[in-house]
Amino acid sequence: MTDLRDEALAALAQQTIELPSWAFGNSGTRFKVFSTPGVPRDPFEKVSDAAQVHRHTGAAPRVSLHIPWDLVDDYGKLAAHAADEGVTIGAVNSNVFQDDDYRLGSLCNPDARIRAKAVAHHLACIDVMRQTGSTDLKIWLADGLNYPGQDDLRARQDRLAEGLAQVYAGLDADMRLLLEYKFFEPAFYATDVPDWGTSLLHCLALGERASVVLDTGHHAPGTNIEFVVAQLLRAGRLGAFDFNSRFYADDDLIVGAADPFQLFRIMSEIVGAGAHLPTSGVNFMLDQCHNIEPKIPGQIRSVMNVQEATAKALLVDREALAEAQTSGDVLGANGVLMDAYNTDVRGLLADLRESQGLPRDPYAAFAATGYLDRIAAERIGGAQASWGA
Amino acid sequence: MTDLRDEALAALAQQTIELPSWAFGNSGTRFKVFSTPGVPRDPFEKVSDAAQVHRHTGAAPRVSLHIPWDLVDDYGKLAAHAADEGVTIGAVNSNVFQDDDYRLGSLCNPDARIRAKAVAHHLACIDVMRQTGSTDLKIWLADGLNYPGQDDLRARQDRLAEGLAQVYAGLDADMRLLLEYKFFEPAFYATDVPDWGTSLLHCLALGERASVVLDTGHHAPGTNIEFVVAQLLRAGRLGAFDFNSRFYADDDLIVGAADPFQLFRIMSEIVGAGAHLPTSGVNFMLDQCHNIEPKIPGQIRSVMNVQEATAKALLVDREALAEAQTSGDVLGANGVLMDAYNTDVRGLLADLRESQGLPRDPYAAFAATGYLDRIAAERIGGAQASWGA
Amino acid sequence: MTDLRDEALAALAQQTIELPSWAFGNSGTRFKVFSTPGVPRDPFEKVSDAAQVHRHTGAAPRVSLHIPWDLVDDYGKLAAHAADEGVTIGAVNSNVFQDDDYRLGSLCNPDARIRAKAVAHHLACIDVMRQTGSTDLKIWLADGLNYPGQDDLRARQDRLAEGLAQVYAGLDADMRLLLEYKFFEPAFYATDVPDWGTSLLHCLALGERASVVLDTGHHAPGTNIEFVVAQLLRAGRLGAFDFNSRFYADDDLIVGAADPFQLFRIMSEIVGAGAHLPTSGVNFMLDQCHNIEPKIPGQIRSVMNVQEATAKALLVDREALAEAQTSGDVLGANGVLMDAYNTDVRGLLADLRESQGLPRDPYAAFAATGYLDRIAAERIGGAQASWGA
Amino acid sequence: MTDLRDEALAALAQQTIELPSWAFGNSGTRFKVFSTPGVPRDPFEKVSDAAQVHRHTGAAPRVSLHIPWDLVDDYGKLAAHAADEGVTIGAVNSNVFQDDDYRLGSLCNPDARIRAKAVAHHLACIDVMRQTGSTDLKIWLADGLNYPGQDDLRARQDRLAEGLAQVYAGLDADMRLLLEYKFFEPAFYATDVPDWGTSLLHCLALGERASVVLDTGHHAPGTNIEFVVAQLLRAGRLGAFDFNSRFYADDDLIVGAADPFQLFRIMSEIVGAGAHLPTSGVNFMLDQCHNIEPKIPGQIRSVMNVQEATAKALLVDREALAEAQTSGDVLGANGVLMDAYNTDVRGLLADLRESQGLPRDPYAAFAATGYLDRIAAERIGGAQASWGA
Repeated sequence: MTDLRDEALAALAQQTIELPSWAFGNSGTRFKVFSTPGVPRDPFEKVSDAAQVHRHTGAAPRVSLHIPWDLVDDYGKLAAHAADEGVTIGAVNSNVFQDDDYRLGSLCNPDARIRAKAVAHHLACIDVMRQTGSTDLKIWLADGLNYPGQDDLRARQDRLAEGLAQVYAGLDADMRLLLEYKFFEPAFYATDVPDWGTSLLHCLALGERASVVLDTGHHAPGTNIEFVVAQLLRAGRLGAFDFNSRFYADDDLIVGAADPFQLFRIMSEIVGAGAHLPTSGVNFMLDQCHNIEPKIPGQIRSVMNVQEATAKALLVDREALAEAQTSGDVLGANGVLMDAYNTDVRGLLADLRESQGLPRDPYAAFAATGYLDRIAAERIGGAQASWGA
Repeated sequence: MTDLRDEALAALAQQTIELPSWAFGNSGTRFKVFSTPGVPRDPFEKVSDAAQVHRHTGAAPRVSLHIPWDLVDDYGKLAAHAADEGVTIGAVNSNVFQDDDYRLGSLCNPDARIRAKAVAHHLACIDVMRQTGSTDLKIWLADGLNYPGQDDLRARQDRLAEGLAQVYAGLDADMRLLLEYKFFEPAFYATDVPDWGTSLLHCLALGERASVVLDTGHHAPGTNIEFVVAQLLRAGRLGAFDFNSRFYADDDLIVGAADPFQLFRIMSEIVGAGAHLPTSGVNFMLDQCHNIEPKIPGQIRSVMNVQEATAKALLVDREALAEAQTSGDVLGANGVLMDAYNTDVRGLLADLRESQGLPRDPYAAFAATGYLDRIAAERIGGAQASWGA
Repeated sequence: MTDLRDEALAALAQQTIELPSWAFGNSGTRFKVFSTPGVPRDPFEKVSDAAQVHRHTGAAPRVSLHIPWDLVDDYGKLAAHAADEGVTIGAVNSNVFQDDDYRLGSLCNPDARIRAKAVAHHLACIDVMRQTGSTDLKIWLADGLNYPGQDDLRARQDRLAEGLAQVYAGLDADMRLLLEYKFFEPAFYATDVPDWGTSLLHCLALGERASVVLDTGHHAPGTNIEFVVAQLLRAGRLGAFDFNSRFYADDDLIVGAADPFQLFRIMSEIVGAGAHLPTSGVNFMLDQCHNIEPKIPGQIRSVMNVQEATAKALLVDREALAEAQTSGDVLGANGVLMDAYNTDVRGLLADLRESQGLPRDPYAAFAATGYLDRIAAERIGGAQASWGA
Repeated sequence: MTDLRDEALAALAQQTIELPSWAFGNSGTRFKVFSTPGVPRDPFEKVSDAAQVHRHTGAAPRVSLHIPWDLVDDYGKLAAHAADEGVTIGAVNSNVFQDDDYRLGSLCNPDARIRAKAVAHHLACIDVMRQTGSTDLKIWLADGLNYPGQDDLRARQDRLAEGLAQVYAGLDADMRLLLEYKFFEPAFYATDVPDWGTSLLHCLALGERASVVLDTGHHAPGTNIEFVVAQLLRAGRLGAFDFNSRFYADDDLIVGAADPFQLFRIMSEIVGAGAHLPTSGVNFMLDQCHNIEPKIPGQIRSVMNVQEATAKALLVDREALAEAQTSGDVLGANGVLMDAYNTDVRGLLADLRESQGLPRDPYAAFAATGYLDRIAAERIGGAQASWGA
């Protein structure tokens, strides 16, 4: 077990989790978006808040952007601001769902003009990538139908393939296209990229630099997500995670809050395939909504939860596991996995942080800085950033 | 079958469906609220639009209000406007979820001040009822928790019981309290009134004028809704329906759009118990969101869908059904039900409308009036009504 | 509409639905298998019962076998018996889940000996195909895990790919391999072929004669099945349907009994792609359990339900639909679909049957034959066929 | 924390978990029941196996019976055998689902003769209770419908109420009636006692000695079970638990295997209300199927899992929790709960066992006894007990 502990520490020291800029702005449900004093009013403030998470955890060195939510005049300036704060710009997310033109879809829209507009937006996002040093174009489409018959399911797939090909053609050689799937919402009858199979088929058609994004909240009830992880790794096309958690639909709660055992199983599948290593090409990101809880502490808790699940996954005695599996010892094999899960790894992670010159408890350390009070006092005037802004 | 047809026509002539004022304003998802030219800017315009539905279907003579969405200075004037348009004010819906104070709940909030505020809002709604002649106070609470441990599940039930009792005490003798339940959303871990059992327990504790509201989109996946209808009727506490339809969560689509067979089964349970008659005390309402489709035509289609399902339910040969059931003829009994469902009742309803001096096809007739173009041209300036307004 | 009616009649006259031999034996749940007098005691009697369905509907000319449930000494004799009864042998289904050896899986089992045994069974099935003239090898595997950690998810995929390749290599040139997927059951944690994506990936790896089987009851709650149909047709890999219906899990009820509108949407997707034509290569089969209802009438009702859904799908005015879709008329497009769905097609199908020399109502006509009483009286002694037999 | 640990140890020392006799016999799915050498052939051997679990855990002193599965000529002899083995007979479960007469239901059957037979069976079970000293009559009914229209939903509720009243009248003064609910299976369209609301309504109508049984696997997907626990405790009608776990439907896996965090939340709700104490009247039972894993070790693991969840629930700092809840500190309150959950309690439980003269690791200690090999060698001949036996 000592060896496993040392290996775990080494692996954990390398793990990084990307933060979403939009987690620091306001978010909510269709019923209400609650506001909180101190919420960022622009992408610069979002990056500053994100940097607080990295400062206290040492594990969150990148910030994803969402365009046009994070539209700025000078992306070089934003990248420089990030560098000043000790972080870098990560993936760029396109947003083709908040313009009245996209009422019936973007890349799948029956209207060719709107499809062209959606393609152009993606090319603009690629331009932002060039200016910020980002290499991942992350695409989640809200495209879908609310009513049976509303549009032709198959024709929409053809339009989608065509639009994605145009976007893919616009990528630089060192860039990737990451295509996310989602079971439902905001469309309520049919979604154009509803499952990993659809996303993978499009990626395979596009080329080697297209991969699938797995958002842990984007599946049908009961879906075995670690199985999907295993399948996408087997196909060599797991590009990124959007971590969060859910009890019902796409609840976007703090990762690990709803089902920590599932998060562990996912990370165990990742570790078993060596995909936790930086060389794997899997980008581990958060995608959450802090509707009622404070945002920076929520992100810190999320990073810690991913670290704890990863630590447990690294402590699985894989030799013993393989032996039990091979011999058909059902309860024994399950027991090996549960032994790791039942281990309290909070001390191990605190030791790691201490060895890195970080606070043992990032959540408490951040609270002690008074940062939230400071931004509440300072950020007066202006409009708080939010999903719709 | 001739007799059944005549009886069906007589019953259908009496059927009324209440319309929600908010269906005529904008609505959407957390991702986007699309706007449409001509959308009402105030409750008066909403009532006028609702009256169009009644004018063409003859079956939608009441309009529900939502407070504060439908706040006006003079409710007598609003009621008079409704009368001028040929409709009346129906249920009054309280709204205690769109104020920053309600972030952690309304009647269940841990803070006594906020609970008192929520009670006061309900008393204000009762006042609106007095001014508009409404007798139904409809309560749906967004109260719930996003995280395990966030609050005490049982203490919240106690607070809820206390708050509801205060509201109930404020009712006039001819008023009812209707308590709606909902499986989830906007709360993502626990909802304080999540199922019919919880709603019924509170209604039983309150007294005879408290009844349950069943929203067809507010159940766990797979729930047999007609069974719930049967249970609530057996308990004498089915106060009202909120009709809509859903494929996934609370999609709020046009009733009958997702599963017309389920709507028929629900109406068959209603008809079997005689609860379709005006004397039953069951208020049949719509509660829908027309996010991408035009709103008045969406409401007309909804009314027609309820009428078609009711007509089919009225055509069930209940003698033959009972005989097959009693004799244990599984396929025979199912066949009797399906015979009614498979009948095309559109002609029968067109005949009914013609006999009432109404257009045979209300959807086409409304389209021919040019009303939508007219309001798009006339309603310039002002802010369109919407969920948040 | 007259043209549509004529085209519909022509297409319906060509439609065939394959019957499962096991639907005529006993089936049940884990709680109880109820027995019925007259249930077949061997494959010959099953074929005779299946032939009754074809005799009265004219639309069910093939019978699928399940090996070893339908093990006989002389398959030539069974095929000849089928011919005498006016039907032919359809797909051969392998069964590698009812031997104690398969407790931890068949093709995915960690034990190489058991994997080899499972491959050998499939080769034996191919031999049955040669003797009966069958060209479809249909594979559904019960392989999966009940507990996390029980076996390695990814290693099982590798074993599966290897085993399937061995089976595929054993096919004759005119034979196809059809791979079915299932969300869960009998495995309760992970299933080795749980979704269409997994099945399709294996089929793509195998070669052009491997296609996916879509069982309508084998999906996660809320899955849009017609979307999956569209995807598999687009990929050219929809090999067959297993029709049935479900409210909850894999309930295996009569097709169209739980959600007739869904069945219509599926058939509309099929018709829209021309996949209802015999040349499409899609084999439309039933796979149901008649646990409490009589079996032959249950199959007759099922065939009629598929015919009714197909008839409605053929009546969709596809020109009007395309026009409404292209113009973004959400309610109009939905309305075109619903017009077809709301049409009562029972008369049209009765006319078709009459024109074919068949009874207008096959269900009533079969009941009138007294066949059920006859077999109940004649089939005395022996063990009734059942899933476990 | 020291205080909490001491209190936890004291409470854990009193906790008892009742074992189901049927968990030691064979069980399976509709697809296959696998057999294992050494499986009991009669109720006496089942009790002996159950006693092994108590011998190693010290926490499982009672065994539930299932009638007629556990039919014996002399119940006094069975009770004496249990006493010899150091355990007692717990609840008696009626079984009215495995006789051909019950095809269309038992207490809800349209046929009065069959309803009377089902009542008589329950009275016979009460007689078994008298002979064995059992005080809990546990009723789970498989009653329900597979097809819409098959029977009248409301009439079945009336028959159910009548039958339950007859059974209740037959109880001795010190006996309780425990009514279990289940979402679905084996009925696939409607179940007559599908939810806690229905069960509670019947219990309230029966009288004070009728309470609800909550089986953790008997809910719709996504149901918040700890909320139901809180509701039933608030109503004073939580009579018993059937513990197990599930990923999909009623999977009947080892409790805590699928979602250990959910089990902890349930136990936390129990502990918060003091319902873990023997005086609470809540009977904590297991109800599981060990289809592919060895049965006695599976039961030992289950008992340990309940103990671990309870230990964590007892370690929740409820003062700190209440303070965070009252002050609206969402993340703080959640953090208090998670602190307890993340604690590794295996050492604490090992200490408890050691202090009680029990093995620190019951699972390993049982394996070391060689009992399984012994029964495999000794129990030759006869028919293994199983669900159907």
